[in-house]
Amino acid sequence: MNMEEQTQKMTSRVSSSLEKQVCDLTSRARKSSRKTAQLDTATKNEVLLKIAHSLTSKHTKNQLLLANSQDLEVAKKREVSAVMLDRLTLNEKRFSSMIQGLKEVAALEDPVGVVRRMWTRPNGLKVGKRTIPLGVIGIIYEARPNVTIDAFSLCFKSGNTILLKGGSEAINSNRALVKTIREALAPLGMEDACQFLDSTNRESVLFLLRQEEDLDLIIPRGGEGLIRFVSENSRIPIIKHYKGVCHLYVDQDADLSMAISIAENAKVSRPSVCNALETLLVHGKIASNFLPAFAERMQRAGVELRGDTQTRKIVPGLSAATEEDYYSEYLDLILSIRIVDSLDEAVAHIEKYGSSHTEAIITENYSHSQKFLDRVNSSVVLVNASTRFSDGGQLGLGAEIGISTTRLHAYGPMGLDGLVTEKFIVFGNGQVRI
Amino acid sequence: MNMEEQTQKMTSRVSSSLEKQVCDLTSRARKSSRKTAQLDTATKNEVLLKIAHSLTSKHTKNQLLLANSQDLEVAKKREVSAVMLDRLTLNEKRFSSMIQGLKEVAALEDPVGVVRRMWTRPNGLKVGKRTIPLGVIGIIYEARPNVTIDAFSLCFKSGNTILLKGGSEAINSNRALVKTIREALAPLGMEDACQFLDSTNRESVLFLLRQEEDLDLIIPRGGEGLIRFVSENSRIPIIKHYKGVCHLYVDQDADLSMAISIAENAKVSRPSVCNALETLLVHGKIASNFLPAFAERMQRAGVELRGDTQTRKIVPGLSAATEEDYYSEYLDLILSIRIVDSLDEAVAHIEKYGSSHTEAIITENYSHSQKFLDRVNSSVVLVNASTRFSDGGQLGLGAEIGISTTRLHAYGPMGLDGLVTEKFIVFGNGQVRI
Repeated sequence: MNMEEQTQKMTSRVSSSLEKQVCDLTSRARKSSRKTAQLDTATKNEVLLKIAHSLTSKHTKNQLLLANSQDLEVAKKREVSAVMLDRLTLNEKRFSSMIQGLKEVAALEDPVGVVRRMWTRPNGLKVGKRTIPLGVIGIIYEARPNVTIDAFSLCFKSGNTILLKGGSEAINSNRALVKTIREALAPLGMEDACQFLDSTNRESVLFLLRQEEDLDLIIPRGGEGLIRFVSENSRIPIIKHYKGVCHLYVDQDADLSMAISIAENAKVSRPSVCNALETLLVHGKIASNFLPAFAERMQRAGVELRGDTQTRKIVPGLSAATEEDYYSEYLDLILSIRIVDSLDEAVAHIEKYGSSHTEAIITENYSHSQKFLDRVNSSVVLVNASTRFSDGGQLGLGAEIGISTTRLHAYGPMGLDGLVTEKFIVFGNGQVRI
Repeated sequence: MNMEEQTQKMTSRVSSSLEKQVCDLTSRARKSSRKTAQLDTATKNEVLLKIAHSLTSKHTKNQLLLANSQDLEVAKKREVSAVMLDRLTLNEKRFSSMIQGLKEVAALEDPVGVVRRMWTRPNGLKVGKRTIPLGVIGIIYEARPNVTIDAFSLCFKSGNTILLKGGSEAINSNRALVKTIREALAPLGMEDACQFLDSTNRESVLFLLRQEEDLDLIIPRGGEGLIRFVSENSRIPIIKHYKGVCHLYVDQDADLSMAISIAENAKVSRPSVCNALETLLVHGKIASNFLPAFAERMQRAGVELRGDTQTRKIVPGLSAATEEDYYSEYLDLILSIRIVDSLDEAVAHIEKYGSSHTEAIITENYSHSQKFLDRVNSSVVLVNASTRFSDGGQLGLGAEIGISTTRLHAYGPMGLDGLVTEKFIVFGNGQVRI
């Protein structure tokens, strides 16, 4: 056997053992999911509060910080960006927010076992739809270790078994967090309700994406690269969003001072998130009235504006917005502007360049508000409010597992409700089909 | 260039022109879907009734019968099975049923634009969820040409653009049916709301399954082979069911005469469909009381029974049910029987061998009925009624596009409601996020 053959043999041995590891994991997840689905609300809440309590204990905290420091050390050696380092860091603020999240999810209503509607058929059959967990949910995510706790709490409260595959850069932190979770599950004999794919080998994700018998849904969370990779290789349904190219349309009948304050909030309050504003569409009739004051305000906030030809006539000195600009999710203090001649043109722009995430109109005109609501089928459509409200917590869902721009049955911010489905239940008294 | 190279070059030319054909089709579908989503109820109903009217006209009917006879001729030459020939045939009964279906769907409530719930946030934002079409739905189906009309009517009424890919054996019939549909759409300039992949090349399906930007959902309808092929090759979410291995559990507290009549109905009334009974589970306590009478009734109806050891002691002469039997969807007058010692054992059997389709319990015991409803998470769970009711029409959905055993947000029989999703709508008065 030459070197090459030896290497090949070794690689294939690694692969097959990795594949076995993944299969074991998913089949244990499937088995566990039947039990997780049957847990009562009190038991589920107890587990969540127990984890919250662990996160306040000195011993657990020290273990987690130690693990996290190992990840941070490796990351620093690899000279990753400051943003990445920040995402990876577990600190007091992150601990509080994980604890807070666990308590909030424990306080939310149990979404399982709800009969949303029930009706009676002419033959006397009583037919209802009753919520049940989806089953096994895989979360594939990148640097943020706090996702481990957040995602587990939502999946567990909704009666699902979770399978976590975090980024290799957070492997030590995630391993320690999963240990904390499983310790809280142990007295119930339910450790398997939290599965962790303990591998930094990307091939493990490929194996995972083929276990369609044992996984019901995959939610990838991370950059566009990760999401495209998952999307192209998955046999399991996935719910995802690639990006948020959010629009704000300032109608000819807008309250202009409201438009300025909302646009500023949408762009400036947190430019790095998916519900931040990326493109402002302004009706031609009010453009010369609105844009100078708006531009001044934006420039004071440090926002770089890029405009179309008309915009640049009204606000001299702006750079030109290209086609590429209108497709861009800047995630930065940059805003592209375009003047449109009608609401129709605004809608057409959103259809062409948008990402089905979130769009808002500012208007005092009733018909225009209705037309915008009717015509725009992005996952969140707002009238006279900031795009930054496109978030599970802000919309009143309590918490969110993510935002779906997949045009599927879960669309937009997904809370506990998005993690259950409905089975039909039928009460008869002997009916047979004629 | 040798022969082989020439052939390769030709094949790749065919592929690339086929790929272009598919891309053109899907991008036209996407474009059209924005208009389809905006159609009002009256307009949609008019189109459906117009198609129904065409199907009664002598001229259209003759054209359709001619096209169908071409398909039948080819099929006969290929010596396909009688069942297949029957599925392929358009006759008076099928015409009536297509016409009836169109009228029924026209009479159903429009599922688009419904605000199912609305709530107010502490900051005064009014948040609601409003139904919208999924967008573009691809239907990949086999021999039955009537699916063309049925699927179009449901997708169109729910504001979706449909893309049809039928079986090659029905290509002429489907082409003629699509022509009829598009003639009804023409006065609106909306022909593109019904797209037809006019190809008998299986590669065209592969190209189709990669157009994730332009297709929102794929519903494959047909045999397990077709569904596995679609499932393994799709980048687009699919909703499917492989098979229906439906169970009926006769509890120790069952009304035994009700159990006999329901089991007979579930097995015998139409053995070839997915909601027919395949396995009967009987509680040990009543087995010797129940099984002899039941077996006699089944044998009179021509049903072959296969049993476990205990069953064969009670009903001598039966053949043994193997592991394979319990996994089987017979679609035939065969029934496997197993005696269980408890409801738990029945549930465990269903979990192991079932297909998440439909299960029923026969019992007069309140607690047992509740336990079965709680524990079994198949898409339809019935108490004291036949599994044959697992059907959109029978459950009161009006009509069905198919049954989903995919543990996704649409689960079980899917009617118009299963073809829409919800966007968030938010009414503000200037709110910004703090």
